[in-house]
Amino acid sequence: MFADINLTENKPIYTQIHDYIKEMIKTGMLPHGSKLPSTRELSKIINVSRNSIMKAYETLEDDELVYTIKGKGTFVSDVKIILEDKWTIDWINNINDYALKSDKLDIIKTEKKYKKGMISFKSIAPDGSLFDMEEFKRAFSSRISMEREKILNYGYAQGYKPLIDYLMEYMESKGVNTTNKDILITNGFTEGFDIVLSSLTKKGDKLLCENPTHNTALKIMKLQGLDIIGVDMNEDGLDISKLKSSLNDNDIKIAYLVPSYHNPTGIVTSSEKRQEIYNILKNHNIPIIEDGFNEELLHLGSHIAPIAAFCGEGNGVIYIGSFSKILFPGMRIGWILGDKKLIDILESVKRSKNIHTSFLDQALLYEYLKNGGFDKYLKKARKFYKDKYTLAVKLATKYIPCESIVGDGGLHIFIKLKNIDSRELLNECYKKGVLFLPGDIFSTNNQGKNTFRLGFSRVSDEDMEKGFKIIGECIKDLSINNLYNNK
Amino acid sequence: MFADINLTENKPIYTQIHDYIKEMIKTGMLPHGSKLPSTRELSKIINVSRNSIMKAYETLEDDELVYTIKGKGTFVSDVKIILEDKWTIDWINNINDYALKSDKLDIIKTEKKYKKGMISFKSIAPDGSLFDMEEFKRAFSSRISMEREKILNYGYAQGYKPLIDYLMEYMESKGVNTTNKDILITNGFTEGFDIVLSSLTKKGDKLLCENPTHNTALKIMKLQGLDIIGVDMNEDGLDISKLKSSLNDNDIKIAYLVPSYHNPTGIVTSSEKRQEIYNILKNHNIPIIEDGFNEELLHLGSHIAPIAAFCGEGNGVIYIGSFSKILFPGMRIGWILGDKKLIDILESVKRSKNIHTSFLDQALLYEYLKNGGFDKYLKKARKFYKDKYTLAVKLATKYIPCESIVGDGGLHIFIKLKNIDSRELLNECYKKGVLFLPGDIFSTNNQGKNTFRLGFSRVSDEDMEKGFKIIGECIKDLSINNLYNNK
Repeated sequence: MFADINLTENKPIYTQIHDYIKEMIKTGMLPHGSKLPSTRELSKIINVSRNSIMKAYETLEDDELVYTIKGKGTFVSDVKIILEDKWTIDWINNINDYALKSDKLDIIKTEKKYKKGMISFKSIAPDGSLFDMEEFKRAFSSRISMEREKILNYGYAQGYKPLIDYLMEYMESKGVNTTNKDILITNGFTEGFDIVLSSLTKKGDKLLCENPTHNTALKIMKLQGLDIIGVDMNEDGLDISKLKSSLNDNDIKIAYLVPSYHNPTGIVTSSEKRQEIYNILKNHNIPIIEDGFNEELLHLGSHIAPIAAFCGEGNGVIYIGSFSKILFPGMRIGWILGDKKLIDILESVKRSKNIHTSFLDQALLYEYLKNGGFDKYLKKARKFYKDKYTLAVKLATKYIPCESIVGDGGLHIFIKLKNIDSRELLNECYKKGVLFLPGDIFSTNNQGKNTFRLGFSRVSDEDMEKGFKIIGECIKDLSINNLYNNK
Repeated sequence: MFADINLTENKPIYTQIHDYIKEMIKTGMLPHGSKLPSTRELSKIINVSRNSIMKAYETLEDDELVYTIKGKGTFVSDVKIILEDKWTIDWINNINDYALKSDKLDIIKTEKKYKKGMISFKSIAPDGSLFDMEEFKRAFSSRISMEREKILNYGYAQGYKPLIDYLMEYMESKGVNTTNKDILITNGFTEGFDIVLSSLTKKGDKLLCENPTHNTALKIMKLQGLDIIGVDMNEDGLDISKLKSSLNDNDIKIAYLVPSYHNPTGIVTSSEKRQEIYNILKNHNIPIIEDGFNEELLHLGSHIAPIAAFCGEGNGVIYIGSFSKILFPGMRIGWILGDKKLIDILESVKRSKNIHTSFLDQALLYEYLKNGGFDKYLKKARKFYKDKYTLAVKLATKYIPCESIVGDGGLHIFIKLKNIDSRELLNECYKKGVLFLPGDIFSTNNQGKNTFRLGFSRVSDEDMEKGFKIIGECIKDLSINNLYNNK
């Protein structure tokens, strides 16, 4: 840029150089701390005497626009950059409906916030203290020494091949027939679901799901502009007669189901019921997106295969898996298993969204899984969360007056209250330092106002007891108030 | 599920148990390798004599549906699961326009593929052998020992705080005023651009950009259904008079610019021209998305500030940065710097797309950057790629007959041919084992048919000479043919 100085004859050379550099500094083109060329260099570049340059630099220094460090050179000072007028765009009025909705539906922003010292039952993130860090470090050393710098360079949109192969076998071990199927690695379940919906549905399409359902999935459906047909649940899962009438009354494009430790109810749908639901949807030719949520916590002996296992060589089920609900959620790794041709298309969608999921993370996860770290971890995690669940049910039964406590295990239980609004309850609990997620955020039709979810995965046994007690007391207070107000 | 057996009185108990389990195996509900309850357990569960269970298991074994391992238990054999009829969905006719376009615009699928032994100038990925793996391993050890399992659990949508702080300072060092601005971490440039466009634009909106331009950016614009207004480039960047007339003729919503080592032309826009472009767009109140592509390869002494530096406390420029074009692209880390309120909205969009970018990767990159690994690397990389660039220009001048060789450095040069179609040239070169990207894929209006991009970052000096020579020979052959055909 210094070569661009146009020197004229009617002003001293050094003044022209001074003014030129001053202009560059004042407009921010020469930022604070940047180094000017040496006087010798500049004199060569613009072909004027070194004396003129030195004089120009001296006057710049007098103006406090630059400073010199002996033996190092001349640098731009911290000058307030002068701009004639600030260019201000009203971004909030420039964002589109999608962004606006993303903001409005963001429960991190809208729900009550955790403050230090509170007891929070909001989260269903795993307890990190169960992670085997030594095993993870070993996985790093061993994978890095094998892959070297390759693992830090660009990879493939579909995913890290060894991980894909591992997951194909893993799905086979769950009873899924992988003939003519393939896997796409995604940034967790959320991206998997977003990719599937944004590739298969159009605004206004009808999607059938359980009511209530996973709030993040619900958000993505709403962002895609889908017409959400929620089917109520009984204590053993979907209400089959309601499912049938919903299918008869609506032209459903696709179904979304969470058969294991359903979020938020915690219900595990039995094999028989899975088969029944599968058959009904198959007979209506409605493809199923199965959310493999927390399936890994099912005890090995339970023999409950995913819905995807029922379709054999058929391709009507898209399975979205993720270990991240119980293992390393910070790495954001999930997968979509489905028809080979469909996965090939989704791979291009993935590529256009963010090229691929971190190859480093995929390789580390693969190494960790293949070395048996996962099996060891699962054994520990199943026991840990089962104990927590048993305690949660026991304590909820003891302390929380309610209509029902639902949930078969996993990382949360679901409470239905008698004639009490869970938002009112939350307000009272919050004052006493206890937090949970009210049920309305999981509802497809703005119901569930007397329900709430209690995540217990990261709460100590002591805090669980303390927290449940407070919830119970707040319920009693509200009941008395209600009674009083109704009189 | 075993508890669900309904035993009747008109058939032997063991036959009923046998049939029930057989049915579960045949339908896939009991997958291959899963373990049956022990005879003792099952006799308790369904309350029948252990003898009946043993007999049932024996007949199942006779049918080869299960096998017994002494001391371990009874397991399900590898049985072909029988499904009455295969449920087949024609997925390709079920995908929407977005997915269809993603597939069609995916140059990994549409362009000629690399085969072993070929010389490929397609890629502008960095040369991984420059990565300092020892430094990276140190970054892992040190960050993991500090953050422990925390870094593997859920993080925040905006990003890893230390990395955000580091990047804010980094942008300040480039002369950007960060007052009332903030940063969102994304999965590389691609996701950053996708998030910005999908939050700010609507189908049919007019986007102004350089013509030609970055093909991935072009793909994302097309996927968003934007009306792309390309402005032709001169050898020093945008043609200013064409920029002005485009602005006068069109109601432009937003502009996208690549001022450094522009992809595909390799042009670095001068500071003066950046200022001029900035002023013109500002006067039209057209927000600018600045792609910081390969800016890190600019020599420190060049003092070329990003366009974002010109707006001071103003908020008209959204800057998307990424180290990943030269460092660790496999980790997919980029960032959006812009108005604080806008970033707050984009954070929710990011959260709804994939919760957050891998916290492990962000923490590792942060550690690597802060320990000075990046500065050391940049010094080495700048020298390495500058030498490669100098050689590329020298060899192209020597071997490739053409109208012009464009590019100021970086990882690629751009060739304009005289009356030769670059796809025809590619066909010929491919036969001789040489690959490059034809210019039409970078064009906003289906032009550039006589241009192509040569990426040299991962090609050895010997292969570069060999490859360029072959390209030159093919051009000569085509010229002779053209001459002959025109006679």
